[in-house]
Parts: sequence; C-alpha cells; structure tokens
Amino acid sequence: MKILLAGEIDAGWRRNLAAALPEADWAYRGDAADVAVVANPARGALAGQRRLGLIQSLWAGVEGLLADPTLPPGVPIARMADPAMSAAMAETALWAVLALHRGFFAYARRQREGVWQAHAQRRADEVGVVVLGQGEMGRAAGARLAQQGYRVAGWRRGVELAPLLAASEIVVNLLPLTEATRGLLDARFFAAMAPGSALVNLGRGGHVVEADLLAALDAGQVREAVLDVFAQEPLPAGHAFWRHPRVQMLPHAAAATDPRSASQVVAANLRAWRDGREPAYLVDRGRGY
Amino acid sequence: MKILLAGEIDAGWRRNLAAALPEADWAYRGDAADVAVVANPARGALAGQRRLGLIQSLWAGVEGLLADPTLPPGVPIARMADPAMSAAMAETALWAVLALHRGFFAYARRQREGVWQAHAQRRADEVGVVVLGQGEMGRAAGARLAQQGYRVAGWRRGVELAPLLAASEIVVNLLPLTEATRGLLDARFFAAMAPGSALVNLGRGGHVVEADLLAALDAGQVREAVLDVFAQEPLPAGHAFWRHPRVQMLPHAAAATDPRSASQVVAANLRAWRDGREPAYLVDRGRGY
Repeated sequence: MKILLAGEIDAGWRRNLAAALPEADWAYRGDAADVAVVANPARGALAGQRRLGLIQSLWAGVEGLLADPTLPPGVPIARMADPAMSAAMAETALWAVLALHRGFFAYARRQREGVWQAHAQRRADEVGVVVLGQGEMGRAAGARLAQQGYRVAGWRRGVELAPLLAASEIVVNLLPLTEATRGLLDARFFAAMAPGSALVNLGRGGHVVEADLLAALDAGQVREAVLDVFAQEPLPAGHAFWRHPRVQMLPHAAAATDPRSASQVVAANLRAWRDGREPAYLVDRGRGY
Repeated sequence: MKILLAGEIDAGWRRNLAAALPEADWAYRGDAADVAVVANPARGALAGQRRLGLIQSLWAGVEGLLADPTLPPGVPIARMADPAMSAAMAETALWAVLALHRGFFAYARRQREGVWQAHAQRRADEVGVVVLGQGEMGRAAGARLAQQGYRVAGWRRGVELAPLLAASEIVVNLLPLTEATRGLLDARFFAAMAPGSALVNLGRGGHVVEADLLAALDAGQVREAVLDVFAQEPLPAGHAFWRHPRVQMLPHAAAATDPRSASQVVAANLRAWRDGREPAYLVDRGRGY
C-alpha cells in the first residue's frame, strides 16, 4: 500500500503515522500512490494521481479540499473523526457555555476595570443551549453539555430553527461549511436569537456574516460572542473583533486532531480500504461533508 | 417554633424561607427565639438569646460566626450544604480547570496583545488535578472533574500532601478555614507545587499567604492563579492581584447558596430539630467546621 502524504503534516504526525502503519510504503512526490493522507494540501497536490483509491483527510472539515478543481474525480474521500478531537471540541464548548452562563467573561472585564461586583447565579437547568450541527462534534458537545445539566437542543438542516433559537440563550455552532450553511448566521439569524443571548462559533468563519454579527453585538441583540474561526485567518490586524469588549477570540484552536489517536483512525481506515471493506466517514461530495 | 433571622438575608431569601416554612413564627429582634437562621450575622446579633436550640447558617463557611465571642455557648450550629451551591462550585472549578488545561486565559491575553498563536493541545487524562478538601464541595468538584477525564486526587488533613502536589499541575482549594488550614498555602506550599502549575482558590482568602503567592507567580513557580476569595474583601483598590496578568479574579462569586433549594434544606433541618431528630451538617466547634 503506497501512501502519499500531502499538506500540513509535520514530523510529529509522520512519526505517529509511521508507528500506526508499520506496513506502509511511503510515496515520494511524483510516485503513483494507492492512497493519499492529506491535511489542507496545496491546490494541485493530488493532480495526476491516477491510481488513487482513497483520499484520507486528517482534517474534519473538507471544504478546502473539495474546492480544489484538480482533485481526482471519483476517488472516495474520508474525513477525520478523531475521538480526541471530538473530546477537545466538547471541552471548548463546555468552557464557553460555563463562562457565558456564569458570567465569567463579565468578571474578567470587571477585573480590568477594578470593579468588585457579583451578579446573580442561575442553575444550569435554567439555561437553554442550542447546538447547530449533529455530526460527531455537535453530538459530543451536546452530550457533554446535557451531562452538566443544561437544557440542550440539537439542530440539523430540515428542522425548524426559529423556535429553537427563541428558546435558547446560547447558540453553539458546529455545522460543516457547505453551500447550504455558508452565511447562515446573518442579520436574520441574529434577529431570531433571543434578545441578549450569546454565540459560540466553533464551526467555520464562513458560517458568519461578520458585519451582521458586529451590528448585533453593538445593538445588544447578541450579548457576547466566543469566536474560534473567522472569514479570514489569521484574523487581520485591526479587525474589530480583536478589541471588541464582548468578543472572546481563539486562534482556530478549539480542537485539533491528536496525531496519536488520529493515526490509529487513519491506519484502521486505510486497512479497511486495502482489505476491500468500506472506509469510515466517507464524504458525500455533493453534500460537501 | 419561633425563628430569628440575622445577617445578610434579603427579601428574596425571606420569601423563599417563608414559603418553605409556612408553620414558622418569625421572631423580631429582641424576642426569645427557638432557632436562629443566620448569614454572616453582625457580631453580637445572637447575644442574650438564652432559649436557642439551634443556629442554622445559610453560609457553608462558619469561621466568621465561630469567631464571635458573644455566640451563645453550647448551642448546636448547622452549616449550609445546599446542593445548588455544590453544583455551582463544581461548575466554577470545572471552568477554571478547563481554562487552565486548554490555555484559554493565555488566549485572552493574546487577544488583548493582538497575537494570533495557537499552542499544543493535551488530553484531559494527561492533566493531574489535586482538590484540597473533601467536604461536600470538594467531593462535588472532584467528581465533576473526574467525569471530564482529569486525573483527580483528593487531599484531606492527615494525608501526605507533597507527593500529590508534585504529581499535579492544577491545585483546587476547597478547604474549610480553620486554625489548622489558615495560611496553609504559603511559600513552602508553592515551592512543593510542580514548577509552572496553577492554583484555583475557591476556599477562603485566609488559606493563602498573598505575598508568597505573588512571589511564586512572579518567579513563574506558579504559572497562573484563579482567585475567588481574598484576605480582605472586597479586594482593596491598588492590590497587585487586580492588574496581575496571570491572575483571574472573581468577586467571591464562585458559588452562592440558592435561596430556593437552601430554604428547603433549612426547613428540613429546623423540622428535624423540632421533632427531636439530629439536624444535618452540625459544626464541630473545636474543629471549626
């Protein structure tokens, strides 16, 4: 099984992949490979690979990969579904929801202002949270939040969204980015949120119309936002999010695949392909995830 | 059953207590009461109450109450053990540990500095946490942290502390404040912590020698501190904690008793006393909690 590596795959990744796949025959650029293991590969990295039987992404989101017009047509693509990444995403969602529910971001602002002032405390079961997206990560985050006592609703396409937004004070976005979800979080969406509620965007920057979010924040319709992803990354210097007092930024760090567990997932999937079984987490190119 | 209310008991508390104890005969100041329900009462508030059979605190920590030399001797004192307060404390501990483990406070600092930079991600089961104190709140916090996958050790007096500190990177203090625990977190304690580890103080300000903590922070021996309680509260203006970049302050807001559930606890305890049964959570005056 000749394996091509392409994209952002550093020495740590290579060490873990080699340990998980002792039988691998590693391809050099230009070799005809049986399978490709890719992480945000440069456009054209797989062009001309005519023998490929499987493309395994190390990233959960494959919208960048699918946007490459040189991607060999017809080859099955598998997304990453790393249990350590799902756990990390659930941790980040839980941290953000705890901080919003208990007002810990507000306390950080008061510390900077030198103000000692406690606010009222509510129980978790008085707080409604809606999780957008019911893939591996949306389900992992929703389960973790429900375990803490929050009133959690999950939303997927085809379900009516407005009643869920109206009944929630925290929205956690974990949708995949597709043509159907791009720009979903726009002025109309923010207007449908309960007044003074909060947004946690752990999906993709392309889900959010950033100018509309800034307007909703400044109007107080959205009280606070925790943003991990942005239309342009790194977020450009001078962007209003950097200094907005009610925006908590992360540098696209909500959850990373862990090379240790993810390499085991890759090995299992490549062996399934080699042995004629169906690999897990295959992408529907039409649907986009 | 004539009940005297003393201390910080506002209209919301009074409404909940009245609803939970419809049989109560509420005493006016100066009346001889059967039981006293107190929340940080003014020194002398219970002086001369000769008929008292029980003092029920609405606070979990009773060190202030016990320090009042006019407290009627021999009267049983019950601490508050409110399930909503334990849950709130576990939430705060979990939020602080998640933020320290995942470096979210560091990301907040980088946002203020305009720096986009992600750091490495570790699994929860790679992070050791020691919880000081194994009362209701220490146990609730420890269980919540273990449920998230952290390697949790619980410490109580009589157990050797140094090996637990050396094996942990986060210390969560939930001890009661007694003569045996006052000043426990001093230079020697911080030196025994693993280099670069973090402190979460949700106990009492009196547990920490603040000058020693500042020195340990500035030496990098303690990487970060989340502090809810202070030697003097409100924390005086100009205190170094207000502006320390690696101190996250809360205004003694980690967990409050919830008048709804706590009033039920009070009602059950007062009825136990009235009916000749032993009230729950009786304080050992000698031990101090």
